[in-house]
Amino acid sequence: MTATSPSLWSRFKTVHCSDPRSQFSLDISRMNFTDGFLTEMSPAIQKAFKEMDQLEAGAIANPDEKRMVGHYWLRDSALAPNAELRRAIDGTLAAIKEFAGKIHRGEIKAERGGEFRSVLLIGIGGSSLGPQLVSSALGSGKRDKMSFFSIDNTDPDGIAMTLDAIPSLAETLTLVVSKSGGTKETRNGMLEVARAYKQAGLNFSKHVVAVTGEGSELHKVATTNQWISIFPMWDWVGGRTSEMSAVGLLPAALQGIDIDQFLAGAKHMDGLTRVKDHKGNPAALLALMWYHAGAGKGLKDMVILPYKDRLLLMSKYLQQLVMESLGKERNLDGKVVNQGIAVYGNKGSTDQHAYVQQLRDGINNFFVTFIEVLKDFNEGHPAEASAKADLFFVDPGVTSGDYLAGFLLGTREALAQSGRESITITIPQVDSFNVGMLIALFERAVGFYASLTNINAYHQPGVEAGKKAATSVLDLQASVMSCLVSKKSMMSVADISQAIAQPDKQETIFKIVNRLAASGRISVQRATPEWDSKYAAS
Amino acid sequence: MTATSPSLWSRFKTVHCSDPRSQFSLDISRMNFTDGFLTEMSPAIQKAFKEMDQLEAGAIANPDEKRMVGHYWLRDSALAPNAELRRAIDGTLAAIKEFAGKIHRGEIKAERGGEFRSVLLIGIGGSSLGPQLVSSALGSGKRDKMSFFSIDNTDPDGIAMTLDAIPSLAETLTLVVSKSGGTKETRNGMLEVARAYKQAGLNFSKHVVAVTGEGSELHKVATTNQWISIFPMWDWVGGRTSEMSAVGLLPAALQGIDIDQFLAGAKHMDGLTRVKDHKGNPAALLALMWYHAGAGKGLKDMVILPYKDRLLLMSKYLQQLVMESLGKERNLDGKVVNQGIAVYGNKGSTDQHAYVQQLRDGINNFFVTFIEVLKDFNEGHPAEASAKADLFFVDPGVTSGDYLAGFLLGTREALAQSGRESITITIPQVDSFNVGMLIALFERAVGFYASLTNINAYHQPGVEAGKKAATSVLDLQASVMSCLVSKKSMMSVADISQAIAQPDKQETIFKIVNRLAASGRISVQRATPEWDSKYAAS
Repeated sequence: MTATSPSLWSRFKTVHCSDPRSQFSLDISRMNFTDGFLTEMSPAIQKAFKEMDQLEAGAIANPDEKRMVGHYWLRDSALAPNAELRRAIDGTLAAIKEFAGKIHRGEIKAERGGEFRSVLLIGIGGSSLGPQLVSSALGSGKRDKMSFFSIDNTDPDGIAMTLDAIPSLAETLTLVVSKSGGTKETRNGMLEVARAYKQAGLNFSKHVVAVTGEGSELHKVATTNQWISIFPMWDWVGGRTSEMSAVGLLPAALQGIDIDQFLAGAKHMDGLTRVKDHKGNPAALLALMWYHAGAGKGLKDMVILPYKDRLLLMSKYLQQLVMESLGKERNLDGKVVNQGIAVYGNKGSTDQHAYVQQLRDGINNFFVTFIEVLKDFNEGHPAEASAKADLFFVDPGVTSGDYLAGFLLGTREALAQSGRESITITIPQVDSFNVGMLIALFERAVGFYASLTNINAYHQPGVEAGKKAATSVLDLQASVMSCLVSKKSMMSVADISQAIAQPDKQETIFKIVNRLAASGRISVQRATPEWDSKYAAS
Repeated sequence: MTATSPSLWSRFKTVHCSDPRSQFSLDISRMNFTDGFLTEMSPAIQKAFKEMDQLEAGAIANPDEKRMVGHYWLRDSALAPNAELRRAIDGTLAAIKEFAGKIHRGEIKAERGGEFRSVLLIGIGGSSLGPQLVSSALGSGKRDKMSFFSIDNTDPDGIAMTLDAIPSLAETLTLVVSKSGGTKETRNGMLEVARAYKQAGLNFSKHVVAVTGEGSELHKVATTNQWISIFPMWDWVGGRTSEMSAVGLLPAALQGIDIDQFLAGAKHMDGLTRVKDHKGNPAALLALMWYHAGAGKGLKDMVILPYKDRLLLMSKYLQQLVMESLGKERNLDGKVVNQGIAVYGNKGSTDQHAYVQQLRDGINNFFVTFIEVLKDFNEGHPAEASAKADLFFVDPGVTSGDYLAGFLLGTREALAQSGRESITITIPQVDSFNVGMLIALFERAVGFYASLTNINAYHQPGVEAGKKAATSVLDLQASVMSCLVSKKSMMSVADISQAIAQPDKQETIFKIVNRLAASGRISVQRATPEWDSKYAAS
């Protein structure tokens, strides 16, 4: 059976799921599920629908953290379970639009009286992946109202590079975004950036806004220092689903992106994915395909291949949304299940030249999700207008974009020929509405898949261990340093570990002193083997 | 057994592989191979050493394409099997340095007499991933001699965005890079960019250089149109190992990166990885760990986590190097083996906030490769000098970089605690020498792994199918268009397929007309179901 045979066309038509109004469609015909699969899964997906209804109605859907899960209300506040939440959502949206308007009109000025022209977001994980995706997918380059920059790590060199790229700190509005307000990478980024403002002779507090939970550490800093403004985060919005809270809306509005259309797209997709007939519900079909592909155990990786440069960061965004939601040790009954689905990918056709060789010929441990974009340019884009007037052909009658589309269909077919599975999502263009649709689609698919596999998609118990271990490394570094300072002699790793009574920590001590010596913060007498080297405070 | 227990420290010391001269080291102590594994694998790795020796001596190591595989000669031309090759390598390196010098000193000027200040690379796959990695890893922002931009796809919107970001085309030197000279994405990018120069009133030929094989289509275009210069590619250098040919060296030299140190680093690593005792050969140990982790079948994904912003693109680079080399249907005996290793990752600690939840708690289908960088800033970096004078502490005695290091060690420990495997590669700083080392390390590890699994690492037979299928889609589009033009009536997908006698291609025809209609290139009367819509030339 080839990928263009009549039976595949018939299968394509049978399972086609589309929304003519938005020109969105989902094709699962290249997934090799059996004819009975969707019917067999009916009871399981109906259970998922019921659980989703309860979640949307305000049930405690994150039992570990005893929290409601309310990201669906962010684009339709009428659904929020009480008036207080509705007011919070509507009020914040209005405040964001008002604030962005004042910045754009120069009613809120920078310290020296100039306009704010750049926005610098400091955040990590759920506080940066969404804003980065939206900025690159929906930005308009020089036509943006403000240029977007971000710092998403505690790498001083990386922070310096970003600061170096910003045209003028005096005209830069910094957003510090942290739900808990205690994330160390973000705190460190804030301190480094505050220092840069100070070195430029500027008052940081007059250039910075916080997005954080009421009463957090960051909230206190922002209040005490009279930052320009504070926007809220709520405990009922998880970090990885916070793109439609102030976390995502504020930077997008500042850049000049249409956040109303963004929310409208998500709301529209929420409508499409509340349909109780799973054969017509794209999020249900996605979740069921993930279940089919990986036997409900994540045995196949999810390769995300949008054929569009603007969607390059989609895979990175979905890495978090999918892997942090679904990568769980235990199910809701407490049984060890080690669930999850690995997600990777960049963009087509670029990735064809990187690893389609393996996808077609190599280990069959994946399924591809193609994202097809119908239009070369968005409606209203300056290049669209000129393209309409004067289409540029690279071959007779053929545009660059025709090639891009051809490569997508060609790869889809070549994969099918060698028995590799793929899903194709089609959107008309990469605009605010459609990016809102895509995010909402995957959010709900993740929720459904969690129900199918009986796990909690809304907590992340595994991330604490690494943070605790990191804290103990920093504590150990402090002990090592004070030991070297007080002993005033050259000491080996074994000497130090004995002196600070940490005989079990020799490897970490070795790592610490080796690093401190590399940048001259302590002195070293090198020996062979390396762990016999001796170190001293310098 | 916790990750800091004495037995792990003892294991760390036993398997530690390091090069004190370059401060490079490889730690495999967190891979759970048995004590006997390295000894058991001794005959297999000795065979790999022998095959590598033959390859380096000029054997036909790519039997399918009957080519030598010579990327190791690029950094040590004395090893090339004959004087002609040596002259080609040395002459090209000298020509690149001379050319970059002339550009930098303004001896080669742009058409209007100004200096070239930006370099725009047009290339895809092996002709862009290396240059992009090197530019972002080794660039110095505003202190670079030229700003680097790249176009790596046939997306007209993406091309427009890149052109929009370039300060001035009149001061931009474009490099068109294609080994075969016939890669469509690159050809299309060239045509789009040439059009942009023309629209700006500039003569493209006076702003462009080719890097391509002698006699290629691109070579002819460059010769006929008297481009500024042409630099060679050779059939004995594969695309994914071409970073140390003109493909990588030319853009790097133009940006102001030290290509001599880059080559020196690779040469140094080549020396370290020619050692015939595999326990002291880091490339052999890497290949053996990949073999161990995935049972020689790629059963575990390779997650690349450099804790350094500059190395963000390393995973993308390695995706191609590893997956295109190892993702093969058949082994050298012709047996179907479907080999390969999936590669993904971005950077730490950022990715901790995205998917370490799954790595620690979820499906155990991966091993992590940490890349640890000892220094916060490179020696000689302006920030290093100021950091030395005035270290910036975010907590008493603690820098942002200490946190970064702490998160790496913490994550490594948290993963080990839950039985997840990891490798740690350590380098002192992210400079030309060390990036050269890293590339050479992985190139050779891939070669060894291919020997261990008896596959050809140097061909890519699977990529043709997608290209052929794409060409047939474009041919079909041409048929559909001429059918609509000649028939002058509204036609359904079924009508068109009948008229052009392609009854098997209805799905592809549906995809084509749906897309052309979306941007108004043909007109449509929509119907339900969608495939009953009717289309006409507009």
